[in-house]
Amino acid sequence: MALALAEGRKALWRSAPNPPVGCALVRDGQVIATGHTAEVGGPHAEATALADLHARGAHARGATAYVTLEPCSHHGRTPPCADALVREGVARVVVALADPNPLVAGRGVERLRAAGIDVTLLPPDHPQARAARDTMIGFLSRMVRQRPWVRMKIAGSLDGRTALDNGESQWITGPDARADGHAWRARASAVMTGVGTVLDDDPRLDVRAVQTPRQPWRVVLDTHWRTPPGSRLLQSPGTALVYGATAQGPEAAAAMARRQALVDAGATAIDAPTGADARPDLAWVLADLAARGVNELHLEAGARLNASVIQSGWVDEFLLYLAPKLIGPGRALADLPPLARLADATTLRFVDVALVGDDLRVVARPPGRDLF
Amino acid sequence: MALALAEGRKALWRSAPNPPVGCALVRDGQVIATGHTAEVGGPHAEATALADLHARGAHARGATAYVTLEPCSHHGRTPPCADALVREGVARVVVALADPNPLVAGRGVERLRAAGIDVTLLPPDHPQARAARDTMIGFLSRMVRQRPWVRMKIAGSLDGRTALDNGESQWITGPDARADGHAWRARASAVMTGVGTVLDDDPRLDVRAVQTPRQPWRVVLDTHWRTPPGSRLLQSPGTALVYGATAQGPEAAAAMARRQALVDAGATAIDAPTGADARPDLAWVLADLAARGVNELHLEAGARLNASVIQSGWVDEFLLYLAPKLIGPGRALADLPPLARLADATTLRFVDVALVGDDLRVVARPPGRDLF
Repeated sequence: MALALAEGRKALWRSAPNPPVGCALVRDGQVIATGHTAEVGGPHAEATALADLHARGAHARGATAYVTLEPCSHHGRTPPCADALVREGVARVVVALADPNPLVAGRGVERLRAAGIDVTLLPPDHPQARAARDTMIGFLSRMVRQRPWVRMKIAGSLDGRTALDNGESQWITGPDARADGHAWRARASAVMTGVGTVLDDDPRLDVRAVQTPRQPWRVVLDTHWRTPPGSRLLQSPGTALVYGATAQGPEAAAAMARRQALVDAGATAIDAPTGADARPDLAWVLADLAARGVNELHLEAGARLNASVIQSGWVDEFLLYLAPKLIGPGRALADLPPLARLADATTLRFVDVALVGDDLRVVARPPGRDLF
Repeated sequence: MALALAEGRKALWRSAPNPPVGCALVRDGQVIATGHTAEVGGPHAEATALADLHARGAHARGATAYVTLEPCSHHGRTPPCADALVREGVARVVVALADPNPLVAGRGVERLRAAGIDVTLLPPDHPQARAARDTMIGFLSRMVRQRPWVRMKIAGSLDGRTALDNGESQWITGPDARADGHAWRARASAVMTGVGTVLDDDPRLDVRAVQTPRQPWRVVLDTHWRTPPGSRLLQSPGTALVYGATAQGPEAAAAMARRQALVDAGATAIDAPTGADARPDLAWVLADLAARGVNELHLEAGARLNASVIQSGWVDEFLLYLAPKLIGPGRALADLPPLARLADATTLRFVDVALVGDDLRVVARPPGRDLF
């Protein structure tokens, strides 16, 4: 299963919207093949491992298949993996995680058992089930919660400042942290920011510091369609989504013209319902992104949007890079309002801390958030 | 040597002002005895190991002695360890670190070699030499730099705030982090704070959350002798030092009366020369503490004193506990002035990061600071 998990992680940057699944086939104590989910439309992990075996003139009859997710039982873009394992005559299947996809949801395991295959499903709190869960957290979130797993990335100093008050911020963290940040972008289905950041920094939001077979979508929250049609995130190849509001009042014609210019520049413009703050309703935007197949949403925004997403409780995971620097006065990680009581602070749980180059990487989540 | 290092660490909370040294005696591949430095006036590591051996009717003739610091060659409170090893007839001595104490400084090794003992001194960049150095960093600092190793401890939130703007700060970090902080206090010779913290919080500054054979001294920087004679840090048993300024002008009589009240309460009052800011000159205070035998100085102060010590460059090591909380606006780790350029930020190097209970512990030093 450790090998299957390692295989699954190889699919992290390529399989979306499919889950990054790994498979290892073992017979007589020997690993005879491994595989992981290909790009969308390509074969799943089990099919990849079997195809590899067949290409070598071998087969998996009597073998044990270790898979990080319940084999699929439905005809999607590819035929069901459960059927392939039955046809192959494997003797046993060990599954790290049941598939919450309503199209599968136990039917994969049923199909295997009905064919006389011995199936073991790891208990949910098994370390390898947890590891599989972490790899597929975005897919699971989309299936179970109908929204992406929202990861907020922020880089700052050890005293929690992202920039000087004069705005200078490049580069607080070092090249290794930046490359690591791009590796996290690469596993996301989409990278989101706010129009403020687009206007201030004109970021590309793509994956450059590491090689990836697939670029995540770029997403901008932009109530008034102010994203410049020439902005860099619209120039890069691939999908760009802009969520704005339906313009009303005397500004409507100009706003609609700006919206059209974005469409002409290749963006997908989406009219979102607005919340009490007259901005696109985040709950709706997240549901829409999930409906479009976004598993992990990587958020890199400014202090204002960060605060709004934190306060509304949508952040599932913080990815913080802290440079070994003390800056003193400067811009906060998020423009949170003052608290009356310490007990009201946003409380997290550290999931992982590691040194990345000269910087410190911290992964933290609201307690229990990953247990859906 | 790994065993000798582990022995040395056992002396961390007891040996000051002596260095926490460990010794392991090995013969024919068997460890025959170990020892570490006792409380001041008691035997050193080598003597402890030999005494243990002798008590069992054994001896160390022909053995190899692994010691984390060059055996002493001078008559201090105890006879020279180098002589004891020669008398014992050990065949070989492996030394992790040369002793920079001017009373030793190579004479220990010379004495052993003159007696025909094979002596190996690890190169300074050997991992075990570095480990020995970290354990004895305060003693080395006092010997080489004539000032203590200054460790600044701060507890705050993940976004770098120590308290709300309304002052609420108890408890940002959890009980494990507080106990860990007391363990670091325990290895220090003295715990220092500013009079502002004494007036605000009336801290005891002693070691309570862990058991220790020896309480560090309490030290207050208190220009105008405003420490209340009834303050808790003067009530606890043990040494308390208050550094103030010689009072002048119309306030002098009242200040001298306050100073005398502190002496009457059992404190040692020390008139320090003042710097341009009319406060006790830190360089002088640190030299005075070193002259009094302080190896590691543990600083737990408020944002203003923290800033002053950081800016004057006296912090050798930061010990930060970051709670998994986002607070938003609140009090900074240190009241540093705004920077004009990011390049002017206080730049550190992460030495260690670890989770302690629910909190994150970060040890960071100015780059190269430990190479004196």
